[in-house]
Amino acid sequence: MITRRKMLLSSATALLTGSVSLLLGRKQLDAAGTQTTTMPSPITPATYNLPYTPVITLNGSTLPWKWDNGVKVFHLIAEPVRREFAPGMVVNCWGYNGQTPGPTIEAMEGDRVRILVTNKLAEHTTVHWHGLLLPNGMDGVGGLNQLHIKPGETYAYEFTLRQHGTQMYHPHADEMVQMAMGMEGFFIIHPREPEQPRIDRDFCIFLQEWFVEPGTFTPNPNIMTDFNLFTFNSRVFPGTAPLVVRMGDRVRIRVANLSMDSHPIHLHGYNFRITGTDGGRIPLTGQWPETTVNVPPGTTRDVEFVANAPGDWALHCHKNHHVMNAMSHTVPNMIGVKQKGVEQKIQNLLPDYMAMGESGMSEMATMKMPLPGNTLPMMSGDGPFGPVEMGGMFTVLKVREGITSYDDPGWYQYPRGTVAWRVAE
Amino acid sequence: MITRRKMLLSSATALLTGSVSLLLGRKQLDAAGTQTTTMPSPITPATYNLPYTPVITLNGSTLPWKWDNGVKVFHLIAEPVRREFAPGMVVNCWGYNGQTPGPTIEAMEGDRVRILVTNKLAEHTTVHWHGLLLPNGMDGVGGLNQLHIKPGETYAYEFTLRQHGTQMYHPHADEMVQMAMGMEGFFIIHPREPEQPRIDRDFCIFLQEWFVEPGTFTPNPNIMTDFNLFTFNSRVFPGTAPLVVRMGDRVRIRVANLSMDSHPIHLHGYNFRITGTDGGRIPLTGQWPETTVNVPPGTTRDVEFVANAPGDWALHCHKNHHVMNAMSHTVPNMIGVKQKGVEQKIQNLLPDYMAMGESGMSEMATMKMPLPGNTLPMMSGDGPFGPVEMGGMFTVLKVREGITSYDDPGWYQYPRGTVAWRVAE
Amino acid sequence: MITRRKMLLSSATALLTGSVSLLLGRKQLDAAGTQTTTMPSPITPATYNLPYTPVITLNGSTLPWKWDNGVKVFHLIAEPVRREFAPGMVVNCWGYNGQTPGPTIEAMEGDRVRILVTNKLAEHTTVHWHGLLLPNGMDGVGGLNQLHIKPGETYAYEFTLRQHGTQMYHPHADEMVQMAMGMEGFFIIHPREPEQPRIDRDFCIFLQEWFVEPGTFTPNPNIMTDFNLFTFNSRVFPGTAPLVVRMGDRVRIRVANLSMDSHPIHLHGYNFRITGTDGGRIPLTGQWPETTVNVPPGTTRDVEFVANAPGDWALHCHKNHHVMNAMSHTVPNMIGVKQKGVEQKIQNLLPDYMAMGESGMSEMATMKMPLPGNTLPMMSGDGPFGPVEMGGMFTVLKVREGITSYDDPGWYQYPRGTVAWRVAE
Repeated sequence: MITRRKMLLSSATALLTGSVSLLLGRKQLDAAGTQTTTMPSPITPATYNLPYTPVITLNGSTLPWKWDNGVKVFHLIAEPVRREFAPGMVVNCWGYNGQTPGPTIEAMEGDRVRILVTNKLAEHTTVHWHGLLLPNGMDGVGGLNQLHIKPGETYAYEFTLRQHGTQMYHPHADEMVQMAMGMEGFFIIHPREPEQPRIDRDFCIFLQEWFVEPGTFTPNPNIMTDFNLFTFNSRVFPGTAPLVVRMGDRVRIRVANLSMDSHPIHLHGYNFRITGTDGGRIPLTGQWPETTVNVPPGTTRDVEFVANAPGDWALHCHKNHHVMNAMSHTVPNMIGVKQKGVEQKIQNLLPDYMAMGESGMSEMATMKMPLPGNTLPMMSGDGPFGPVEMGGMFTVLKVREGITSYDDPGWYQYPRGTVAWRVAE
Repeated sequence: MITRRKMLLSSATALLTGSVSLLLGRKQLDAAGTQTTTMPSPITPATYNLPYTPVITLNGSTLPWKWDNGVKVFHLIAEPVRREFAPGMVVNCWGYNGQTPGPTIEAMEGDRVRILVTNKLAEHTTVHWHGLLLPNGMDGVGGLNQLHIKPGETYAYEFTLRQHGTQMYHPHADEMVQMAMGMEGFFIIHPREPEQPRIDRDFCIFLQEWFVEPGTFTPNPNIMTDFNLFTFNSRVFPGTAPLVVRMGDRVRIRVANLSMDSHPIHLHGYNFRITGTDGGRIPLTGQWPETTVNVPPGTTRDVEFVANAPGDWALHCHKNHHVMNAMSHTVPNMIGVKQKGVEQKIQNLLPDYMAMGESGMSEMATMKMPLPGNTLPMMSGDGPFGPVEMGGMFTVLKVREGITSYDDPGWYQYPRGTVAWRVAE
Repeated sequence: MITRRKMLLSSATALLTGSVSLLLGRKQLDAAGTQTTTMPSPITPATYNLPYTPVITLNGSTLPWKWDNGVKVFHLIAEPVRREFAPGMVVNCWGYNGQTPGPTIEAMEGDRVRILVTNKLAEHTTVHWHGLLLPNGMDGVGGLNQLHIKPGETYAYEFTLRQHGTQMYHPHADEMVQMAMGMEGFFIIHPREPEQPRIDRDFCIFLQEWFVEPGTFTPNPNIMTDFNLFTFNSRVFPGTAPLVVRMGDRVRIRVANLSMDSHPIHLHGYNFRITGTDGGRIPLTGQWPETTVNVPPGTTRDVEFVANAPGDWALHCHKNHHVMNAMSHTVPNMIGVKQKGVEQKIQNLLPDYMAMGESGMSEMATMKMPLPGNTLPMMSGDGPFGPVEMGGMFTVLKVREGITSYDDPGWYQYPRGTVAWRVAE
């Protein structure tokens, strides 16, 4: 089902220009990037003997490094990436090291770091280290601070980390296109003086918006407002990993945003404090209590809480269209329209037509509509009590008592100690 | 006057599909809900012997309860609602107990509450208690925390209030549709320890956005960005009630938002402090002084001030299109276009055409344009000095000396003690 | 190159209505306002013997005054204004005293001010003093607080300044149109008790959004979301002045926003604190550290930092489409579309067609595309290392050691002491 307006415009285009645009639309790049459904494991204290609790990039990974004479050396490769947004949909993105978001760079305050950037894109790029205090020549704005990195070239950035917090990296070259295609990543700097009290579980979630025309594979970076896919770490629900924690864990969630819109990320069942931005830690006296952290574009936000309420708690953007998958914005409004008897007549004109939406859209979560290829249903996900009716920027915080491993045994295992019952009217 | 683009699309649709969509558009549901122009009075200390100052839900009401063995029992009925947005326009919404927003639930920290929810919609629903700390099974996410409440069923939620502040309730089932249709309400929890100093006047304003095609009666929940009606408690100016206070009153305004956009709510003549969110009270050291409180979707904001400046002070969203009513976004731009002599020629083609907008749009506030049925003018409202030229999210804070009742004697009574004069050039 | 959708709609309009709209679109007002490319110098301590450091309105000016019996008398003239957005594009705006934003009003806490407003527009107007504490009759809401100021009339506002901070002035009459046309200005009130430590450089930047159809000269105020030009003080990059400061200067940037969207303004290379709003100064305990200040509509934000890192640091809105100039939103998506051999065929149908965008859009920064008249390229600007590939809300903070004048000798002079090199793969 292509939306009415799309159909209309396409038809009119064909009418007026002789199908030129449609013809072009079919020839999509067969991207050379690797499929990133299965992610490498994050770096752990055991493997690296780390003096800090490493972050967990959900559906993602952390970038390995090697020592070179006291310098931590990282290597980013800018390249096309095929990314599975959720089972049933793969998108031709751009990213780093086969991933979008790129692997998380993690280091410590005081570290000297060198980051080699190899450009395997077909156009030039640069990397800007968003929020970092560094020499001007290392700031990564193409044309202003450095020559662009041409296809095939490798550029070395090197500087000393003079702060700690949640920063980002992204291109500053053809940036409207390159960020819209998925080029972005976390740059986490741990404090030299260990935090007290210690954080037990530290999650990273990168926000992005996309427009992928239903039935196609490539995001359209020219879209400014009318997006149709909204991602946590370039995944949509039900493809988003849950946040699994033990009862009593001290939890931090770091959220970054390089999309066109602010995203108000809401956590159920908890009050948290907003403790930091990409500018550093907010003093205790200035921290706001919230259940929703609004994350503007070009910022990061840290939130913290103690996981003292067991159960499955929804974590999602509170803009309602952002927890739906493609194709919801321009379909005709059928609320309250009695369609009995009309469906047959319309099918004479439009054979694929299905009468629906008369009393709302919840039926869309269960019925099997014919969809274009590579397109997810608007609402999906199954819970212990039936369809969850969500998509996009949605996942679940799972707080468990007595678990011995964070590898969660069941997606929607129901917590004990809660009360739910029905009353007949 | 249908906008140019709308006309175009409709015509083109007719051209391409043989009027199918237009045909369907005419058959609107004759909703069974009650008209809610006249609201029940809010609960007052006199009638209930309350230990707190009850809130005032402008153009709305507070939900009554009865005691059952130490438990406060409330009853919400989810159902279609006909809502007058302003005199001259009635919209087929969904809400609770005949109202949108639903009646405000008001209780005290420590209370045990039971809330029965009866579903009189044609599709299933649930209620999520936004910002409340409660057992996981009471959290109301359909499929994840409970079975959906089917049409005709009643579900009982029960929990103890372990916090205080400005929270919300709304569905977590087919939520994109159900919230866009008006299902939302305040959940106010007063502190066990009375606030010092006491608040004298405590107002509640719920923000929502709608798209109602001019000439029709039903909101289109598929619209993501291009809304055309912006409401305070599901009313638009000039249908919005004023906030009436006495000189010296300590005033709180609680604003909640479940729309798709942030709304920066601006108060004239005062600086206020932002004192709370749905996550709780902001410590005094962290409160920001503001004249505009930006309210992101999925959040609430409390602001407080002492009413020490008499007069009529505008209170409105500062996004300029949000203080206009329908039909302003896609009309052709006539600024600076000299239309003398052309009007007649166009009327040969489009008989309803009126030449306007050449020098701006203020003439629209006074001229009588032919409008489609059930459609408000873009700008309206009359003040003591002429047309106010507003719509949408606009009302007035009226601060008065020496009044003995908050029932305001005159909408725009001019305050004493102010100075205004004209000077000839 | 008109965008595909625009072309389509225009053609369809012509088809359906016999070119009526296109005909009207050609007759644009020949505005009587003055060209404001060259700005008067700001008021300086030397000329006025000022007890404060005056602000710098980039690409703008400060409003002179004269004393009248202890009252500072200002004179604003509301009128059409031709504004050069950047070399190559002039826009028919409305503003004050030949400028948009209007000249900055600057005064001191405790001052008695009288502001004469003469209306040289073709429709009525008023001035609202946004954020100021004043008598109700001076608040400037047409119809509510005063009669409208008719064309040709002069109105006198007079009040005493009882606060200090960053406020604004703008119309409260036909305000959707008048603000969208550029009527806005800063109202800066310096504290009676001088700030410690003193600010050395104090900049003012006003944010606005516009839709100017490519090839035309007049903004369309009916547009609500789909803007195509984004300005700092009604200028777009590369027409925006840089912020020049000496190493060690204490710097404040005051940002105001009367557009329809929040703008997250990001500064490279620094952490700053958010120190004030239009509601006043934020207590030190509540100030957040940031690298990006999100400025909602209807607010101002002050940020402060010490310029201790030399170099050229980008300062820009972090919504990526807002650092591009017109024509980027609805062009067809060519990412990954192989166009070799197809270009010729398309040119048979559309002679102006250029095959581009196959591997990204960076080529648009250097190639010479045929553009409609009065239209800027999407990306432009030249730096010491090549094309900067920016537009819209973008400029540069230039921090220099050892300079004796803030009149900067070179736009992109490269700072010393930085390290940059390339490594062959």
